[in-house]
Amino acid sequence: MPRYKLTIEYDGTPYAGWQIQADQETVQGALAQAFRRFCGEDVHVAGAGRTDAGVHATGQVAHVDLSRHWRSDTVRDAMTAQLRPHPIAVLSAEEVPDSFDARFSATKRHYLYRIVNRRPDLALDRDRAWRIPQKLDAHAMHEAAQRLLGKHDFSTFRAAECQAASPLKTLDQLDVSRSGNEIRVVTSARSFLHHQVRSMVGSLMRVGEGRWSADDLEAALKAADRTRCGPMAPAAGLYLAAVSY
Amino acid sequence: MPRYKLTIEYDGTPYAGWQIQADQETVQGALAQAFRRFCGEDVHVAGAGRTDAGVHATGQVAHVDLSRHWRSDTVRDAMTAQLRPHPIAVLSAEEVPDSFDARFSATKRHYLYRIVNRRPDLALDRDRAWRIPQKLDAHAMHEAAQRLLGKHDFSTFRAAECQAASPLKTLDQLDVSRSGNEIRVVTSARSFLHHQVRSMVGSLMRVGEGRWSADDLEAALKAADRTRCGPMAPAAGLYLAAVSY
Repeated sequence: MPRYKLTIEYDGTPYAGWQIQADQETVQGALAQAFRRFCGEDVHVAGAGRTDAGVHATGQVAHVDLSRHWRSDTVRDAMTAQLRPHPIAVLSAEEVPDSFDARFSATKRHYLYRIVNRRPDLALDRDRAWRIPQKLDAHAMHEAAQRLLGKHDFSTFRAAECQAASPLKTLDQLDVSRSGNEIRVVTSARSFLHHQVRSMVGSLMRVGEGRWSADDLEAALKAADRTRCGPMAPAAGLYLAAVSY
Repeated sequence: MPRYKLTIEYDGTPYAGWQIQADQETVQGALAQAFRRFCGEDVHVAGAGRTDAGVHATGQVAHVDLSRHWRSDTVRDAMTAQLRPHPIAVLSAEEVPDSFDARFSATKRHYLYRIVNRRPDLALDRDRAWRIPQKLDAHAMHEAAQRLLGKHDFSTFRAAECQAASPLKTLDQLDVSRSGNEIRVVTSARSFLHHQVRSMVGSLMRVGEGRWSADDLEAALKAADRTRCGPMAPAAGLYLAAVSY
């Protein structure tokens, strides 16, 4: 059976996350339904990252096995048509070898977290960013963030319901930069624990507002204790930006 | 009566435009209702630009006269609270002299038009940009756009229902630039005719796709004939970005 790799963009706002559920709208469910309409097959759409409810993607990757060959552009365009009016777009489709697995072949996952650092409510960026009214020091956030790089037990930044076998992960990048009133956190790793990015961002917010020092952040990491985490950043600011293979 | 200048951001998607109407949701109507809730007054919210249905603003300006003095921050924060859940945010409020008029004191209006030049549907930018699938030459669009600068009869780019006394306008800026698959058109003038920006953008699209030369665009301008206009660009890509005084 030919295998296709899909690169997918979605607005996570209306979905109960990526993973298919019986009675709720999910991204995986919408894709499976679109495949049924396109080629009449019940397929398993295997994603690289199981994003939570409200989390967006500009570069989620998934693979799917179809029973016959289609031109890649046909898969992309037919899925685009069948997905309407869902805010989900198939950016590209390409045929890949059977050895390609969207989840297990991934060498790096890249996330973006958007903070809008202003007092007024968000109008155009509602559901697209985390509004934080108090002035944040993005430079201090970036400096502190570097303490989290490398291989650590990330239990402090791990959801209670995380199903990973081990809390040991290697963080490759955690950059914080400001442009006007927008603060962008860009992070990458082979894989992340459940809620790890949002937990790190919430803890970095504590640094940005001056309540935590870089040493406090490092101490929280080293404690490997969930109760030492800052507030979890909301889902709406998080984007699965890309997956490397 | 103290006069306040408001700088306002909104998502134009759910509104029948800026201007108040009896039976439809409008931005001006939502602001007037929020003022009634905030201070019990029926006020006229005078805007710098009457944006059409679906057009957004990141820097609309309005003025309003209130019967008593309030701290500017109180006006901003109270309006923010009273506007919820509208996707309208008062970014700032400041007391200004009676001589200030949001519409008539404006020396320049600045608009942004966003095009996303790609084949797949827009998921995250739905209602926020114009998707154009065919490859556009942004450099050619920019070069041709310069032919429209200066004082001209802009009848070609003017809606039939335009209420301006004269089709003569002076265009100060019309810049087209590409970043990845996004093309941004930035334009400014003391004032614009009704639908002028969207008409110019639609005509520039003809240049970008190679169907019109810069000479064709200039000829369309000089004809001063509405039937020579390109397709009108959709409202969703247009943002009233700022107003200068």
